[in-house]
Amino acid sequence: MDPELAAPGSVRPGGRTARVRAAVLQVAGDLLAEHGFARLDLTEVATRAEVGKTTVYRRWRTPTGLIADLLVDMAEQSLPRADTGSLLGDLTANARLVAKTLADPRQGRLFRAVIAAATCDESTASALRRFYDVRLTEWSPCITDAVDRGEVPAGTDPRAVLTAVSGPLYYRLLASGDPIDDEAARTAAETAANAAAAGVFGRTGA
Amino acid sequence: MDPELAAPGSVRPGGRTARVRAAVLQVAGDLLAEHGFARLDLTEVATRAEVGKTTVYRRWRTPTGLIADLLVDMAEQSLPRADTGSLLGDLTANARLVAKTLADPRQGRLFRAVIAAATCDESTASALRRFYDVRLTEWSPCITDAVDRGEVPAGTDPRAVLTAVSGPLYYRLLASGDPIDDEAARTAAETAANAAAAGVFGRTGA
Repeated sequence: MDPELAAPGSVRPGGRTARVRAAVLQVAGDLLAEHGFARLDLTEVATRAEVGKTTVYRRWRTPTGLIADLLVDMAEQSLPRADTGSLLGDLTANARLVAKTLADPRQGRLFRAVIAAATCDESTASALRRFYDVRLTEWSPCITDAVDRGEVPAGTDPRAVLTAVSGPLYYRLLASGDPIDDEAARTAAETAANAAAAGVFGRTGA
Repeated sequence: MDPELAAPGSVRPGGRTARVRAAVLQVAGDLLAEHGFARLDLTEVATRAEVGKTTVYRRWRTPTGLIADLLVDMAEQSLPRADTGSLLGDLTANARLVAKTLADPRQGRLFRAVIAAATCDESTASALRRFYDVRLTEWSPCITDAVDRGEVPAGTDPRAVLTAVSGPLYYRLLASGDPIDDEAARTAAETAANAAAAGVFGRTGA
């Protein structure tokens, strides 16, 4: 917790700190989505969040420090895995969640901005990898459950399956510009589920 | 052709222009790989390429103009499609080419830099989409040939198949940081070939 906010007699523990953080991260996300990462400025963040400039500089120090904390917050808010009872059902839910996020104008631009920021700064790159590690770990039981149900072979690599779902959707966002629609989501999920059932993601094979 | 270089009595048509462009684009690629796109500076490019600053500013105008021309050059230099006689063979060649490019230190950083630049500038984004359009179009006959051979159903979408090959490799480069090795390449190719054979990429289905 930020020491300056932990004094006795302050509002309940975490109350003001949490509100300040929420306000600052909301504004940081808005600015990243509006202008990209190259123009993120802590003074502008403080003004728009109606938070003292000193607080913002003391707590986040640099734009990259702020982006790293935003990624921590995004990881904390990421939705729990689906549990539909089938691998295809779970992967379709995952693909639709990713597609909805990337196709949303604000969220799509925000993801492009943090991915771009990570190419320019190693601490942001670490924060980005931790964010994806949290997401991949959260959804991995969809694949281990499918192994338990006998849908896919033992030894199927959960991260590789989830990478096959997300990868084509991110490629559309960042490279080809092809549409990220429901057909793209369904295709990504079916592709991964089909290959997983055929043993493509496991060294032990089908 | 650049009008300033087309005067009678100059070296053979295209000669000097082509040499200047090659030198400038080589340096631009080096600088992007070294420092990312945010620090690309035309004066530094001119100095390192041993080309007049006026020539560089007149011909490319801005860093984004230079990145756009670099993407045109990268598209021109992209390798022709493989023709191994099977869809899996062709997609494996494609996946290995993509993986080799992205895993190469200079090329991997260069691709990250131009993708980041495209998130900040619409003309760079257009140039990037054209680059991927050229690559996807170049390799699409691998899928239509597979349709002709009866390996995959009629109506299979070539771009969707190729997106399933490249997507997971780009996701490793830009998001998860997971390794881009030969296993990742083989898995991406097998995933796409398997799903294509099952009719996942065609509306008419298997």
